[in-house]
Parts: sequence; C-alpha cells; structure tokens
Amino acid sequence: MLNIENYNWSETRLRVRYAETDQAGVVYHSNYLIWFEVGRVELCRDHGFNYREMEAEADALLPVTRVKATYLMPAKYDDEIIVRTRLTDLRSRSVRFAYEILRGADNALLAEGETHHIVVNSQGRARSFPPKYAEFMRGAGKAKQENDERSNEVV
Amino acid sequence: MLNIENYNWSETRLRVRYAETDQAGVVYHSNYLIWFEVGRVELCRDHGFNYREMEAEADALLPVTRVKATYLMPAKYDDEIIVRTRLTDLRSRSVRFAYEILRGADNALLAEGETHHIVVNSQGRARSFPPKYAEFMRGAGKAKQENDERSNEVV
Amino acid sequence: MLNIENYNWSETRLRVRYAETDQAGVVYHSNYLIWFEVGRVELCRDHGFNYREMEAEADALLPVTRVKATYLMPAKYDDEIIVRTRLTDLRSRSVRFAYEILRGADNALLAEGETHHIVVNSQGRARSFPPKYAEFMRGAGKAKQENDERSNEVV
Amino acid sequence: MLNIENYNWSETRLRVRYAETDQAGVVYHSNYLIWFEVGRVELCRDHGFNYREMEAEADALLPVTRVKATYLMPAKYDDEIIVRTRLTDLRSRSVRFAYEILRGADNALLAEGETHHIVVNSQGRARSFPPKYAEFMRGAGKAKQENDERSNEVV
Repeated sequence: MLNIENYNWSETRLRVRYAETDQAGVVYHSNYLIWFEVGRVELCRDHGFNYREMEAEADALLPVTRVKATYLMPAKYDDEIIVRTRLTDLRSRSVRFAYEILRGADNALLAEGETHHIVVNSQGRARSFPPKYAEFMRGAGKAKQENDERSNEVV
Repeated sequence: MLNIENYNWSETRLRVRYAETDQAGVVYHSNYLIWFEVGRVELCRDHGFNYREMEAEADALLPVTRVKATYLMPAKYDDEIIVRTRLTDLRSRSVRFAYEILRGADNALLAEGETHHIVVNSQGRARSFPPKYAEFMRGAGKAKQENDERSNEVV
Repeated sequence: MLNIENYNWSETRLRVRYAETDQAGVVYHSNYLIWFEVGRVELCRDHGFNYREMEAEADALLPVTRVKATYLMPAKYDDEIIVRTRLTDLRSRSVRFAYEILRGADNALLAEGETHHIVVNSQGRARSFPPKYAEFMRGAGKAKQENDERSNEVV
Repeated sequence: MLNIENYNWSETRLRVRYAETDQAGVVYHSNYLIWFEVGRVELCRDHGFNYREMEAEADALLPVTRVKATYLMPAKYDDEIIVRTRLTDLRSRSVRFAYEILRGADNALLAEGETHHIVVNSQGRARSFPPKYAEFMRGAGKAKQENDERSNEVV
C-alpha cells in the first residue's frame, strides 16, 4: 500500500448560489455534501482521469456509504468557497476522501468532512476498482510524492 | 379527441421543507417545479397508474420540454401546500399539465404553472405514448366525465 | 438529566421525488440529510411544538454542527420512505438526534444517521434553549415514559 | 428609456454536478432555473455591482414573479455549461432577463428562458429600484453601447 499521508490536497473553487441558502441566511448544511462531490470530481481530474468516463467506460460507480461533516462557521450567499479534497485510503474495493471547506476571502475553515465509497457496477453489485483508474490515483500519488521529494532536495 | 375541459384536478399535499427556503425567508422559486412533478405523479396515481412503472415497463419517459410559472404570493417554511394538477392536452406523442399551488391554511393561490412533455424512450428517442397508459389517462378522464354528468343529473 | 434511553421514535412518511434521484438511478445521498430535517420537525410536532414558531417567537435556531450518515441500501424513485427520529441528548445549549430511514414497502433499513445542533439566536450567537421549548421536549419525553410504564403495567 | 436591444450578453460557465442529474441520466429540469440565477448574478457583476450588496445595503430584493423555460437538448453530468444572460427590460419597479444555456463543448443551445422580477424590500413590500443600482445597469448598458460604437469606428 502506498503512503497516503503524502498525498496532496486538490483544490477547486465555487461560488455560493442563492438557491443554496436557507431562511437562516446561511448555506443549508446538506449542500456541503454536494460541494464534497465537486471536490472529488476535481481530484479525479487532477489525477488524470474523468469520473464520468470511469462510470461510462469501466462500469464502475463510487456510491457514498458513509459521510461525516463538522460545521464550524456558516458559508454565506455569494461567498467564494475553496473545496480541498484529499485521498485518505485506497483499496481494491473502496476509497475514502477527506474534505476541507474554506472561505476564499480569508481562508477561514468553514467545515470539514469525510466520505467512504465502495466500488459497484451499474447494477449496484460490488466489484473491484478498474485497474486503469486505480493506477491513475496511485500513480498520481506516487508522482506527487517524487515531485515533493525532489522539490525538497531543491530546497 | 376527448373533451379535456372536463378533466378534474388531482390534489396532493406536502409541507414546505427548511431546505426549500432561501435567505429571503421564502421558498426558492425553482422548488415549485419540483412540486409540479409531485402533482403530476399523484395525478397518474389518481388515473390508475404508476409513473415509475411506465418508465420501467413500457420504456416511456416524459421529459419536460417547456415550463411556465407565475408566482403570486410566497410560500413559507412549514406551510402546508396543496398541489392541484390537471391534464390539459393529451396527444400520441406529447402531454401537457396545468398546476395550481395553494396554501393549505387559507386556500390562497400562491402560484400557477404549466408543463409540456414529449414521450421518449430511455435512449431519449421520441416515441408514442404506450397505449395502455394513454388509455389510463383517457379512460379515467371519461369515467370522470360520466361521473360528473351523473352527479349533475342528481343535482 | 432525563433518561433519554426511554425516548420513543417519532415517525413520518414521505415519497421519493424524481428530483431526488441521480443518474445512478438511486436517491442522491445528500437528500437523506433533508429527510433527517423532515424527521426532526415532525418529532417537534409530536412533542407539542412547532419548530417554525420557536424560530419566530423565541429567536432560537438549531443549526447543525455535525452530521453522520451511513448508507446501507439505496432508496429509489417513488419509494415510500419512513423517517424515524429520536432525541438522543438534550442540554441547555445543544441537542442531538438519531435517525433511521426505512423503506415503507418492507421496512428495510436504508440508512442511519445522527445530527448535533447548538442553539443560536437569529444573529448566530450561542444561547440557551428557550425554557418553554426545552420543557416541551423534556416533558413529552417524561409523559411518554410514564405512559410506557403504565402500558407496561397494563400488560 | 434606453435601447435595451443593444445590451450585450453576459457569460458565465459552470460544470454540471452529479447532484443535478436525475435517473433519466440528464440534468433535472428545475436546475436550469438555478443556473439562470447564476447568470443574473454574473450579469450584475459585469454591470459593476454585487447583488448581495444590493440586498444588504439598499434593502432591495428581486423576487421572480414569472419564469419560462424551453428545453431543447439535455445537459449531462460533467458537461461544461455556458450561461448567457441579457437584460431585456428595466423599469422603476421591475426588471426582466433572458437566458441561453449552451453546452461548452460545441456551443449547442440546450435551453432558453426568461424571468420577470419585481423590486421589493426585505418585508416583501413593492418598492422602486435603488437609483444607484438602476444607474449601474443603465450606465453599464450605455457604456457598452458607446464602447461598441467606438469599437465599430475603430474597425
């Protein structure tokens, strides 16, 4: 198994929509789970693959089996949000991600969370991760580690 | 073609969810379209069939091709809402519905709308309405007309 | 502190909306958090009060500070869903709820979860639970305990 | 009144979220209304002001009173979407916008729509447009016309 500790965070940005607020004047809490998903998809892109293609070509879906979120400060309408996503575990039949939700204006941490996923086919049956896509994640992680080591040497 | 004017309204009730409100303290306007869908499904049930089964068994979906909505008064959190739905046009390859959204507490009309749909298969190709399901709608309409005539006689 | 173990579950029912499904053919996972909210509101009603009124009259809101959910089996379009909600902790400035999501057709357990809440005013400042509403929950719990004891005696 | 015909389209881009799809494998139709809102907000930014500030500082909200949408081709998961928004009418107490939803990959027109809005204060009472913000829209429109004329001269 690879040293998941060395994985870097992927980052993506989005802007809070009016539709995502509620009558308390803040973002309704279930929307953070949708932002986690936005983060996961961008992490895949950063690792060299497209989640849509994995579903379509390799018949592999990653349904959420567990989610946790902790809300520290409310996001507000029109805030720019930074979604940071990190792979925390990668196995043949499951994968985990961790998330941080930050406010772009001042980098304040608004929420943290984590999701667990299993790999299933389009009939919902458990299967193992398609090798090509597992390799993308693993390889990208490794490449990043090497890069990090090299940049450490440079420093 | 049947006299669509005589079709009755189907009615269903729902309660406004916190998640449906926005920071203006009222229901965000796109949610009314979801309530229209709730109304359509209950109309199907009132006409003796299940929209889910039509999709699964007869490979017929009814995507929305046009929607209009007029908002008169805001719905608020925890309001009981009455969704009234009526078939306004039924053809071999398309169907239209009209909607009224009322507040349960006082029957105030909050919004009105209409949707147009075409019939497609699961590949998105246009097809005609499955006869059995067209019959359900038409038959139910007719039955209702007859019932209405009879109840008129009684009166 | 009251014996929270003896609290009963509140139950409410809802039907899965088309808008709640995703392209995997199942309910998108963030919608369960909205169902939890539906459950909480009905629990309040079962305990003799209206969450809307507490917000409006007593200036007390219950934002979610933590949420956990475990997904066991997917909910599908048009399924009747049972939301079971139980108070698991009640303090002067916070409250916790546990949830079970069941499929109405066969009582299969689809998901479980829990939410933590703090009490804040409309400016987002922490405050203690309005006594009247704390009493509602506590009293209702107690009443239920007594009823349960009595019904035990009867049996 | 200004010649609204000369107003330019504002453009913004977004990516379709998994949560926005439904079990038919396409974007659920109510989400386009949320994209219209994203477009409106970016149009305001292009016209030199922030819709959030107008709500907060000038106590002016723009609730939707009418919406129309026509769906031509389905948007799909992970599609890049272009939202084009144009001011079509600006009065002292109301405003209208038109929208085009295009697929980024090939500029295919997926949907068109329009929204009507009135100006209200935070109590929901009709009021006139705050002069400063009306000016922003009008001025920006005029500036754009002049710029267009000048750039025409240059050409």
